[in-house]
Amino acid sequence: MTVPNHPATPPDIVRAAYAELVVTDLERARWFWVDLLGFVVTEQTADALYLRGYDELTHHNLILRQGREPAAARLAYRVRTPGDLDLAQAFYAALGRRTERVPAGVTPGVGEAVLAEDPLGFTVEFFFDAARPQRLQQRYDLRRGAEVARLDHFNIVVPDVRAAYQYYRSLGFGLAETIEDGETLYAAWMFRKQTVHDVAFTGGEGPRLHHLGFFAHESHQVLRICDILGSLHEESHIERGPGRHGVSNALYVYLRDPDGHRVEIYTSDYFTGDPDHPVLRWSVRDPRRRDFWGHPVIPSWYTEATTVLDLDGRPRPLTPEQQPAEVKVGADGFTG
Amino acid sequence: MTVPNHPATPPDIVRAAYAELVVTDLERARWFWVDLLGFVVTEQTADALYLRGYDELTHHNLILRQGREPAAARLAYRVRTPGDLDLAQAFYAALGRRTERVPAGVTPGVGEAVLAEDPLGFTVEFFFDAARPQRLQQRYDLRRGAEVARLDHFNIVVPDVRAAYQYYRSLGFGLAETIEDGETLYAAWMFRKQTVHDVAFTGGEGPRLHHLGFFAHESHQVLRICDILGSLHEESHIERGPGRHGVSNALYVYLRDPDGHRVEIYTSDYFTGDPDHPVLRWSVRDPRRRDFWGHPVIPSWYTEATTVLDLDGRPRPLTPEQQPAEVKVGADGFTG
Amino acid sequence: MTVPNHPATPPDIVRAAYAELVVTDLERARWFWVDLLGFVVTEQTADALYLRGYDELTHHNLILRQGREPAAARLAYRVRTPGDLDLAQAFYAALGRRTERVPAGVTPGVGEAVLAEDPLGFTVEFFFDAARPQRLQQRYDLRRGAEVARLDHFNIVVPDVRAAYQYYRSLGFGLAETIEDGETLYAAWMFRKQTVHDVAFTGGEGPRLHHLGFFAHESHQVLRICDILGSLHEESHIERGPGRHGVSNALYVYLRDPDGHRVEIYTSDYFTGDPDHPVLRWSVRDPRRRDFWGHPVIPSWYTEATTVLDLDGRPRPLTPEQQPAEVKVGADGFTG
Amino acid sequence: MTVPNHPATPPDIVRAAYAELVVTDLERARWFWVDLLGFVVTEQTADALYLRGYDELTHHNLILRQGREPAAARLAYRVRTPGDLDLAQAFYAALGRRTERVPAGVTPGVGEAVLAEDPLGFTVEFFFDAARPQRLQQRYDLRRGAEVARLDHFNIVVPDVRAAYQYYRSLGFGLAETIEDGETLYAAWMFRKQTVHDVAFTGGEGPRLHHLGFFAHESHQVLRICDILGSLHEESHIERGPGRHGVSNALYVYLRDPDGHRVEIYTSDYFTGDPDHPVLRWSVRDPRRRDFWGHPVIPSWYTEATTVLDLDGRPRPLTPEQQPAEVKVGADGFTG
Repeated sequence: MTVPNHPATPPDIVRAAYAELVVTDLERARWFWVDLLGFVVTEQTADALYLRGYDELTHHNLILRQGREPAAARLAYRVRTPGDLDLAQAFYAALGRRTERVPAGVTPGVGEAVLAEDPLGFTVEFFFDAARPQRLQQRYDLRRGAEVARLDHFNIVVPDVRAAYQYYRSLGFGLAETIEDGETLYAAWMFRKQTVHDVAFTGGEGPRLHHLGFFAHESHQVLRICDILGSLHEESHIERGPGRHGVSNALYVYLRDPDGHRVEIYTSDYFTGDPDHPVLRWSVRDPRRRDFWGHPVIPSWYTEATTVLDLDGRPRPLTPEQQPAEVKVGADGFTG
Repeated sequence: MTVPNHPATPPDIVRAAYAELVVTDLERARWFWVDLLGFVVTEQTADALYLRGYDELTHHNLILRQGREPAAARLAYRVRTPGDLDLAQAFYAALGRRTERVPAGVTPGVGEAVLAEDPLGFTVEFFFDAARPQRLQQRYDLRRGAEVARLDHFNIVVPDVRAAYQYYRSLGFGLAETIEDGETLYAAWMFRKQTVHDVAFTGGEGPRLHHLGFFAHESHQVLRICDILGSLHEESHIERGPGRHGVSNALYVYLRDPDGHRVEIYTSDYFTGDPDHPVLRWSVRDPRRRDFWGHPVIPSWYTEATTVLDLDGRPRPLTPEQQPAEVKVGADGFTG
Repeated sequence: MTVPNHPATPPDIVRAAYAELVVTDLERARWFWVDLLGFVVTEQTADALYLRGYDELTHHNLILRQGREPAAARLAYRVRTPGDLDLAQAFYAALGRRTERVPAGVTPGVGEAVLAEDPLGFTVEFFFDAARPQRLQQRYDLRRGAEVARLDHFNIVVPDVRAAYQYYRSLGFGLAETIEDGETLYAAWMFRKQTVHDVAFTGGEGPRLHHLGFFAHESHQVLRICDILGSLHEESHIERGPGRHGVSNALYVYLRDPDGHRVEIYTSDYFTGDPDHPVLRWSVRDPRRRDFWGHPVIPSWYTEATTVLDLDGRPRPLTPEQQPAEVKVGADGFTG
Repeated sequence: MTVPNHPATPPDIVRAAYAELVVTDLERARWFWVDLLGFVVTEQTADALYLRGYDELTHHNLILRQGREPAAARLAYRVRTPGDLDLAQAFYAALGRRTERVPAGVTPGVGEAVLAEDPLGFTVEFFFDAARPQRLQQRYDLRRGAEVARLDHFNIVVPDVRAAYQYYRSLGFGLAETIEDGETLYAAWMFRKQTVHDVAFTGGEGPRLHHLGFFAHESHQVLRICDILGSLHEESHIERGPGRHGVSNALYVYLRDPDGHRVEIYTSDYFTGDPDHPVLRWSVRDPRRRDFWGHPVIPSWYTEATTVLDLDGRPRPLTPEQQPAEVKVGADGFTG
């Protein structure tokens, strides 16, 4: 992949807004995401669920769509103005990427949108208009599970982390943190909203979706969802954690849904809105980078991820990792 | 009231086990105690609900019985052996108090019991056998509201705190903490189980039930029930707190149920099981005794309480406070 | 006060950055803010302390300066570019307000700055360059007290809340929440960074500083600082709370420093960065607006505040409130 | 080992009171236990530190004594009356075990005591009198680290868990929980105070001390000590967790001190004081028994433990495990 030093003005992206996951059993997915994790159902159609967190003031943070194979169909970003849709389309056209204009209402709760196959191989969407559901932020009586507040970020697996960084930099994203050594960029966390990230890159065979990160307000909510899963003997859905990330300083847990899609419940984080916000660079040899408490990352977390779909709904072919694998040089206690 | 220096051996009381409250609208009481506070329903009969906390391993911590006037019908203590029932009956007979033997099963989930009108004017029960419901301690998926774990204590209003102290001392209770000055004992906390109290005394017109105290494991659960009440615009049920008690060091909130019965959700507390456990004596002039953060106690907390019933279900007549009112000498910022 | 519909482009303000408070005993102020609350000392000079929270990546969030009378000397906002300093100066000149250019380094850790006496009577500062201290975000070993993370907001007392709203709107601030009725705007919360506020207005005799709001990550940190103050018998520094705000949904406690300056420790809050972020309007008759748990606001919270200084360091004269007092129409249980 | 069905009356044990660990570098041990974990120093002598938790009302919960090899020198239980010392001596004499009478004051803060080499090979102590240090329970200003409240339990490695269970049953301990299958008792948790345990048995080469368990009040304190260790790049002291135990329902973390002594910080737990408290029996095949969230136990946790000393201070010889190893039949994801 090459990212030309193109002259196109990028759209003004506000934040990571929602993702669409293909699930193979919508009722089972509803059980996991709604009954256990506690997402709010904004809307349900014959083949899809539109879910949001308790703080979210737009229609959804997540679409779960019934399909035959688990996949990530799109990653959607909200833009600042209606005019940013034209900028988005021109931006990807200048990159020689395929785009598509989606009329308002095709996706429930979302106005006119631009879809694009981005240079990293992901189907991304940009939209401005969004329907407003009922405000539930202060309906503590309704909260369940992890009491998820809002979507925080996408984490994507890419064969070339530096290329991913350069592409997102061209989209106007700021850089919050990295894992690197003298030669290699192993991972990076980039943001538009004033948090550590809207998108992060994990090196590996890609393009694949590593996980969706959702924000909860306090650490006891992260512990609670684990306790609930244990209670139901569904603890196998807990893949990694709870732990404290070195990168981002967030308390985390990684869960796997019934189709294997990975979801992070994430709390803490910090303000990145200053104009000269300094990058925090972690050595790949610091065992605290992935877990501040020094625990090794389990192998599946590095190797498993979700297939992504192109604009026609076909799985994207995979490219092997183009750089040394992060785990081989780590001090993690294992050498995948 | 006089407590003779009698020779009768008291029953070996294990702990405060349950209370029976008369409520005027059982459905409304169910909404408050079950739907909001999160109590578990062990059993429901035509006119009563039998509720327990998530940690409780016996049938109930609370009976809510439909009736015409709000009242507290009994305070029940569990004893160590079946033989303690005879001791209990003899103990109250020696005091010249009326007692009653209740066959097993009259109260669902409770074996044979002894009821007595105690010297303070309360109807107390002693029982050994108890039915075991399903263990729900690790069913985090079922928890709601304040995630109440178990009954912790009874707090009763008595006209003469020193007499109440002497009576409960004769029953073998230990003394954990007091509020006092050189001459007057304003309040005392006494225990059988290894916590700060199973029973506490608040000075005032009595006998009345001041509140039932239930234990929750962590402070965020105390905050959560307040948030839930606010969410539903039922915040008027929050009477006092959350706050930190000086006495007991517990984080507390006091709620009022639809009939005005006061309930405390209570967390923290400490171990009192050592044989020479030292008494912590608070000066009535220390503004931290009732609220460690120095906030004044609101007047209703000192003045309002629940009527108690005798063995025939009739309200007990009230005796005025026999000692200076605690609040008049306090540094609370008000002088009720 | 009138705010002309002026044509001047406002500076691009990033966020509330720091405040300068005059304290009458710097050692005692250090004890309160550093030893108890847990602020980090970035720098100390003969007559001043420069403090920051653990997450803060610039030099300070608070200057405590020794002086003869307690006062608030300035409220400083960080701007997006160096060029915003000229915009700031022109903006206030267009309003006919006095301004002053401050060379870099006059204030330790702060580059060139513009000071202005704003239309509301406050001395405000705008700066771009800021020195970077050591990153302490992940030095949990150093954390003390309330583990304050960063400055969140200024809350100012103004005689005319609507005028304050219009002035800050002309500065490009968004509106997150209000307290109002059909005719009167009683209070408003306005933001530049993507949180509920950088500045809020409380109606009253003004200009005065109502409080500085600092962010902590979790609710147990709010409880902890109260416990620490109780431990030292310094509980009189706790003025109000902890409680949950209806407005902002934050868990709060208000403390008073040794000079009476009010500080809020504040956690939770929500994302306001969407371009069409909806305003949440509270009725002045909703008792949950100021405390979601329905507790009355204590009178001192409405009536006491900090004197503010003009550019010459002289106290600003006060103007009486120009609108009905909020408390008189409330359902707070008192009618101040 | 055989436990005779002896007629001797056991001493009335109140609770696990303290342990003595031999450390090879007292200053380094002080750094770990006092500066990081936050234990209170009651007394320091030339070669030893006497430490307690913030809630502890007796002299110490832990003695750290300078020595040449890391070891556990004794496990001390408090008894209910002075007369229990004679019972203890007679009890062990009847078992044919060596005992020793220690005059008051030999161990600072401890009255007359009986030491015995118990049938499991541990040196145990029984004492009644204890000095009372300053009450620090409500000195939140002093709290650091994990804010350890009190000693909760000893966990010991024994070759024959059933024999250990029978011996402690003969000492009057109750049984709270087990890990077992049809034939083998893999682990057991036994109590005198009204919590899940004062002592627990882990099967393995023994006698060795597996860990000391200390109680903290809330889960955020467990997370906090991990964050502190990560901050100082001392994360290698975190061996396992934080996690939720299936057994005991407690939130835990296991740390290793500079000499490898294992310490558990432990919160939650439940009341076991009822006379018919039911035993909770976990199948060795339930992956939630050791970690309710299903994470495998790391091998070192099963294999490493602290040497114990006899009455002469010599290491006890080890006996191989007499039963199938727990991990071989588990569903832990590893088969040690």
